[in-house]
Amino acid sequence: MSFTVQEIATALGAAAAGNTALTIRAAAEPADAGPDELAMAMTPAYAETLGRGQARAAMLWPEADWQAMGLEAAIFAPRPRLAMAGLTRMLDRGQNFDSGIHPSAVIDPSAELAGDVIIGAFCVIGPRARIGAGSVIGPHCMIGTDAAIGAAALLRDHVSIGARVRIGDRFIAQPGARIGGDGFSFVTPEISGAEMARKTMGDQGETQAQAWLRIHSLGAVRIGDDVEVGANSTIDNGTIRDTEIGRGTKLDSLVQVGHNVRVGEDCLLCAQAGVGGSTRIGNSVVLGGQSGVADNVTVGDRVIATGATKILSNVPEGRVMMGYPAVKMDGFTETYKILRRLPRLARDLDALKKAVFKPNPNE
Amino acid sequence: MSFTVQEIATALGAAAAGNTALTIRAAAEPADAGPDELAMAMTPAYAETLGRGQARAAMLWPEADWQAMGLEAAIFAPRPRLAMAGLTRMLDRGQNFDSGIHPSAVIDPSAELAGDVIIGAFCVIGPRARIGAGSVIGPHCMIGTDAAIGAAALLRDHVSIGARVRIGDRFIAQPGARIGGDGFSFVTPEISGAEMARKTMGDQGETQAQAWLRIHSLGAVRIGDDVEVGANSTIDNGTIRDTEIGRGTKLDSLVQVGHNVRVGEDCLLCAQAGVGGSTRIGNSVVLGGQSGVADNVTVGDRVIATGATKILSNVPEGRVMMGYPAVKMDGFTETYKILRRLPRLARDLDALKKAVFKPNPNE
Amino acid sequence: MSFTVQEIATALGAAAAGNTALTIRAAAEPADAGPDELAMAMTPAYAETLGRGQARAAMLWPEADWQAMGLEAAIFAPRPRLAMAGLTRMLDRGQNFDSGIHPSAVIDPSAELAGDVIIGAFCVIGPRARIGAGSVIGPHCMIGTDAAIGAAALLRDHVSIGARVRIGDRFIAQPGARIGGDGFSFVTPEISGAEMARKTMGDQGETQAQAWLRIHSLGAVRIGDDVEVGANSTIDNGTIRDTEIGRGTKLDSLVQVGHNVRVGEDCLLCAQAGVGGSTRIGNSVVLGGQSGVADNVTVGDRVIATGATKILSNVPEGRVMMGYPAVKMDGFTETYKILRRLPRLARDLDALKKAVFKPNPNE
Repeated sequence: MSFTVQEIATALGAAAAGNTALTIRAAAEPADAGPDELAMAMTPAYAETLGRGQARAAMLWPEADWQAMGLEAAIFAPRPRLAMAGLTRMLDRGQNFDSGIHPSAVIDPSAELAGDVIIGAFCVIGPRARIGAGSVIGPHCMIGTDAAIGAAALLRDHVSIGARVRIGDRFIAQPGARIGGDGFSFVTPEISGAEMARKTMGDQGETQAQAWLRIHSLGAVRIGDDVEVGANSTIDNGTIRDTEIGRGTKLDSLVQVGHNVRVGEDCLLCAQAGVGGSTRIGNSVVLGGQSGVADNVTVGDRVIATGATKILSNVPEGRVMMGYPAVKMDGFTETYKILRRLPRLARDLDALKKAVFKPNPNE
Repeated sequence: MSFTVQEIATALGAAAAGNTALTIRAAAEPADAGPDELAMAMTPAYAETLGRGQARAAMLWPEADWQAMGLEAAIFAPRPRLAMAGLTRMLDRGQNFDSGIHPSAVIDPSAELAGDVIIGAFCVIGPRARIGAGSVIGPHCMIGTDAAIGAAALLRDHVSIGARVRIGDRFIAQPGARIGGDGFSFVTPEISGAEMARKTMGDQGETQAQAWLRIHSLGAVRIGDDVEVGANSTIDNGTIRDTEIGRGTKLDSLVQVGHNVRVGEDCLLCAQAGVGGSTRIGNSVVLGGQSGVADNVTVGDRVIATGATKILSNVPEGRVMMGYPAVKMDGFTETYKILRRLPRLARDLDALKKAVFKPNPNE
Repeated sequence: MSFTVQEIATALGAAAAGNTALTIRAAAEPADAGPDELAMAMTPAYAETLGRGQARAAMLWPEADWQAMGLEAAIFAPRPRLAMAGLTRMLDRGQNFDSGIHPSAVIDPSAELAGDVIIGAFCVIGPRARIGAGSVIGPHCMIGTDAAIGAAALLRDHVSIGARVRIGDRFIAQPGARIGGDGFSFVTPEISGAEMARKTMGDQGETQAQAWLRIHSLGAVRIGDDVEVGANSTIDNGTIRDTEIGRGTKLDSLVQVGHNVRVGEDCLLCAQAGVGGSTRIGNSVVLGGQSGVADNVTVGDRVIATGATKILSNVPEGRVMMGYPAVKMDGFTETYKILRRLPRLARDLDALKKAVFKPNPNE
């Protein structure tokens, strides 16, 4: 894979300068770059390390003085991360999976695979499963009965797609993603301590220990177009209807989405985030790493939960949330500053008490 | 799969009314229900959406006016989630795995499989492993040397059961569950900074950086009857004896149970909960989503930890816990309310200081 | 597998006493020990339970009165966990994987496997992958194109090693570990609400909802010697350069390491810990269970984060951290003590306000 500097600039819609016929085979950090690698030096701090590498061409910020950096050519990126999206798409060598259908794969005769689908070694494709045109299914994947995957999917290895799961186009699943495990839903014959504590905000009352009865998952999972699911993440089946992930939403590694959850469009769920059962997440929501949303709550559009935030109740649209329990970020910051002053406040209070309630020495 | 309204009511021990000979093929939310689907409308709010679907029969609350809702038949569920357990068990279509032993499976000749066991494609069954009657092992499972699984198990795909793990009857494992990875246990030749900090509550003293030596896991995992383990959850081997999960306990997705832990009976460990090494969890304990329990502590029977609670020390039986570090829920709530008032309290304190310690204008 | 008491003592560099020719076949807790098992009784509390088992030999603390315990032989361990490391290594029966290369494995002809490598059933080894001498690759593993694993590795089952990942010697991976999933990196065409909130500490301004563009991972993962990765843990590929894990570092189960992260040497990342993208972790750092480190921060050498600590900004070397957001442990403890007194402080403040600002009864 190689491109000229000009080809890359054109693909990115970016300006270029110098010897734009120079051939580029890969991207590199400035200090590591070889002579045919494009150095990513989109800030002055990165550009200062160009001298430690051998780059002849670099991606720079607009109006950077590329010639003073000793470069032969440059591409100018007004929005660096946007340029990275275009560039990395061009240079991605991917996993290099074999083409065709591996002879070891076990494919039910009733499965419908588009003509150009790639199926890796040791895949299992169940009855009536459907896989759209141009999709690549890596080794060790399991596609269940009646599951449907759209066009141009990329499943890495060891991915599970349960029975009756339906997925849109351009789906990406990282290794070990599990779509369509059963929901976690149990009930006791009589009211349980956990139910009672929930109603009373903390008191289990006279409830007795009981065995749990399982509520089975009759629903599956429905996923829109352009969704990505990270390594070892899990999305559980719904109870009666499907759990839903909206178009354009991306899940990082080790994310959990519970049964009946509805996640909207264009959300980001960062690593180890979790969403409790039957919760509704709006569009363009960002859940930071290790954040959590309780079950049965509603999170509005464009809400942002910073890392490790725990949302325990409904959040109106547009809020930036932080803390456990989550509050608006500015409220969290204000409280937190006072918290840090608490030891001094406590001492001040003691001094005040002494001054105001001082024992009368004459009595 | 289909049942009459009467058959369902009888199986649930519930009362029915109307044309109970009506045939039901599936359950559905009221607004989505087709004419042969039973609408789940166990609250008035759900019942109001019946008109948007085509249901002719519904599961309702006792004494609901089913005829006014335009229904032909109804089942009355005094405890809705309990009825859901029975109904979903009847209507669960499952994963539809093939029957028999798939010819691709690699089964050690010394393994003992009951006659009717189902083994999916690409399974590996180790020497002397035993699998009980009626068990279903999905594709891509690994059952280790000397492992034992009881009767009527259901393992979805990609499940790992390590060597010497012993599991009771009616075990359920969701995709990617890992039972019997090695415990995480390391030691330095001399006392380490972490050990020192633990003893001194925060001071590493003069300890030096050192390499870690591995403590191997000689124990395995022992699991009682009627246990379920969620997708991509992990239960580690014990060091000398087995890690233990008691009868009737259920683990959600992405849960971690460390080495030597003993979890009692009838517990619920919700998604992404974690239990540190050598900790003891009583019976009928509920650990909410993303909650954690430190290593080497004891959690009494019937303790409930709400979502994201972090238990760092022993908890007596029956407590409802919240917070990080976890405290009793009512104490958490009281402190939390004051926390929200902290900015005002700090202002009040400033005003008091000014009033009490005011500079004497005459001096 | 069996050893005499003397052989074990010699291997551990420990003193022994009594009939050191006694044969030991396994280790056990004192109360469970059979006559040919070595009882682990390294504290008086454990030794008191010796009578409930049948042990004839025990591992004890120095100068313990073994004869009064009714033992025939004893080994004395000055540092119990260190002795455990040596002993458990000797007695580890492991997973008992088959030797040789399983005929079902799909191995690219260009892969380079050392002569004595063990490859389990249903493994996939990609083009030009290299596996060093003495390595054991369990069933269902996927080793990607151009990946390299050093000598003496042990991969349990279902492990994923992505394309171009490079790993040192003596690597251990527990079941379901995922090395080299793609990083989680997205950008919007125009500035997004999340970017704006980050800059303004909480205000999304007039930003609009937009679709996410993917930044592909051109880098892979580079791992030093003597690293262990726990069950279902995930280490993501770097964007331009590799994500790095230093020599001697150990990851527990369900740990997440984001793209571009550099973890130093001899670190411990306990279960469910997470490290955000581009963060730098020093040497000999301990991240407790469920702890997290934000993206783009630097954590110095020998930092210890206790369980559930959330590090949101840079931490200088040697600190012991606790809380969310993380602060020094002694500061956390001080603040926490006052927090517990808050309800009383609030009442005191009310009393002061009444006393100081009392309404004048004469007005």
